[in-house]
Amino acid sequence: MTPRMFSFVGGNTGRWRIVRNLSVSGMPLGEAARLDILPNTEIKPQLAMGWALRGLTSNERYVTREEKNHLLAVQPDLGRSEASCAALIPIRKNAAWWAMTQDERRSIFEERSHHNRIGMQYLPAIARRLHHCRDLSGNEPFDFLTWFEFAPEHEPDFDRLLAALRATEEWSYVDREIEIRLILD
Amino acid sequence: MTPRMFSFVGGNTGRWRIVRNLSVSGMPLGEAARLDILPNTEIKPQLAMGWALRGLTSNERYVTREEKNHLLAVQPDLGRSEASCAALIPIRKNAAWWAMTQDERRSIFEERSHHNRIGMQYLPAIARRLHHCRDLSGNEPFDFLTWFEFAPEHEPDFDRLLAALRATEEWSYVDREIEIRLILD
Repeated sequence: MTPRMFSFVGGNTGRWRIVRNLSVSGMPLGEAARLDILPNTEIKPQLAMGWALRGLTSNERYVTREEKNHLLAVQPDLGRSEASCAALIPIRKNAAWWAMTQDERRSIFEERSHHNRIGMQYLPAIARRLHHCRDLSGNEPFDFLTWFEFAPEHEPDFDRLLAALRATEEWSYVDREIEIRLILD
Repeated sequence: MTPRMFSFVGGNTGRWRIVRNLSVSGMPLGEAARLDILPNTEIKPQLAMGWALRGLTSNERYVTREEKNHLLAVQPDLGRSEASCAALIPIRKNAAWWAMTQDERRSIFEERSHHNRIGMQYLPAIARRLHHCRDLSGNEPFDFLTWFEFAPEHEPDFDRLLAALRATEEWSYVDREIEIRLILD
């Protein structure tokens, strides 16, 4: 069975080297030199140092069938040999977002903020996996963890993707966001 | 803060007496004499006997703003003094359900199965709280736990509500369902 749970563990070890750890909004995340991604792992209660964030892949909440079929046709897998750059973007959305109904959220997410349409402009260069945290315990530090992988020559594309998303109406509901950039070495 | 996590613990103690424990489809749940509902509790790894199911209240996934406003206006609270009967209905939906997109699920859930419209016919007699399990760990025995409370004279209404939901197209995606009936004594 494909694992659904992933833990992102920041510390002194791990396959990925952290080259930036930026608090875009809200409380920063602690410093760490490296990051590991552990599938199917419940977070250990205490780490020697660093932090651990966990999330679950889940069913999509906003795409239509037409959008999903297009995504399935063009989205790349994680783990491509040329994709030696990565980013982890943990975000939390505020209470006003979660008090909206599905149709209201979809309207802001796609009809007005074009979240998927923006993301699709960067396919197949940028691979992406979304992890949900909000329904893990009711007390998680973030709602979503998104993991991106791309080749070094596509880093400017990734910068544009981030800037485009942060300029949307949807992002006005984001009250905590961390940007972590990583390289394989 | 209102708790979002609830554990339903079946065993020899608890405020509610279990008067029926029926496997409607799929694997049965073990026998238990009584049930307790514990807010904000992580399940203990081993219980002396019995079982524990946990779920989180979450944002609604299918109602529109119009439906939500109507629900907010007419739905009763849990814990009414006359509501001495209750039911716990744990269900799991199959892989075909979760592979659908939001618009496909909404179409089956409401436009074709009228899930909320059926439920609203029994308001304000029957109080209800939905708990999500699927995104707690990726390995939960059920996807949803729904808790209902009603006065004894509304038990026939509750029977009709269950029968109406089980006859829907939506229910063809349910591959495990337990029906637990309880009384306060």
